[in-house]
Amino acid sequence: MKITNLEDLFNHTLEDIYFAETKLVKALPKMAKASDSPALAKAFMGHLEETKEHVTRLEQVFEKLGRNAKATECPAIKGILTEGDELMSEIKDADTRDAAMIAAGQAAEHYEITRYGTLVSWAKLLGHKDIATILEKTLKEEYGADDKLTKLAEGRLNKEAA
Amino acid sequence: MKITNLEDLFNHTLEDIYFAETKLVKALPKMAKASDSPALAKAFMGHLEETKEHVTRLEQVFEKLGRNAKATECPAIKGILTEGDELMSEIKDADTRDAAMIAAGQAAEHYEITRYGTLVSWAKLLGHKDIATILEKTLKEEYGADDKLTKLAEGRLNKEAA
Repeated sequence: MKITNLEDLFNHTLEDIYFAETKLVKALPKMAKASDSPALAKAFMGHLEETKEHVTRLEQVFEKLGRNAKATECPAIKGILTEGDELMSEIKDADTRDAAMIAAGQAAEHYEITRYGTLVSWAKLLGHKDIATILEKTLKEEYGADDKLTKLAEGRLNKEAA
Repeated sequence: MKITNLEDLFNHTLEDIYFAETKLVKALPKMAKASDSPALAKAFMGHLEETKEHVTRLEQVFEKLGRNAKATECPAIKGILTEGDELMSEIKDADTRDAAMIAAGQAAEHYEITRYGTLVSWAKLLGHKDIATILEKTLKEEYGADDKLTKLAEGRLNKEAA
């Protein structure tokens, strides 16, 4: 895709986050399965449902723009998930593996938070008010997912500290 | 590095963020040079000085742990910077390129925010109180750098909207 203006960049970034969300739909069940803590597994499965909804919302956005949903390979989310995968298969100790998976999950959430934050700003600038509203809904859920993982990490800290 | 407990995971993650910070020391001057907006160039150069200080702080942390500073290749930050690089060289329109570079800078900041957030929690859990304090200082500066980029993006929005 040749990018000559902000509308093109907006479209490119939508394809980037669409790639990221579809990758996460595949990664989250594996992370849930590898979780030792039932609460962590539940958090990953809960976020899987949200993530599927985010994919649907992005497809609505593509439709509103009169374009077909398309994924552009995103090296950033691939890198984040590769790091998480390597640690997940390498670490044998269950508590340590859970800690690594929480960290990997939060890295993915922060990537999405920064991308959706940018997309919301650009949607407003480009006059796509309804699209901004859709993307803002997802942005809020990504913040929520990150907070949930922080609380799980802290719960673990409290347990260990006790 | 074989990771068998949280201390190992903490050390591994320090090496990961050390890699990221040293990569950013090389990337930021290029981003400043490619910026059309003088305010954006100034923000990148200002954050370069902070980033050099973050590298020094990480070296202090390694020393406190009785270890040599070591970087472990981090696919996540490589992916984020690769994406930014590609857009930087591809986009000819100055305003659009600046918007892409702000987005790339914020993606890098968010990666660092999530990693330092995790490291601070783990440092506290592992009883490394002085190290937690050092890392918390950097974490605050990463939030500050992200806020500055948000303001620049919004300033641009206001300018365009005017």
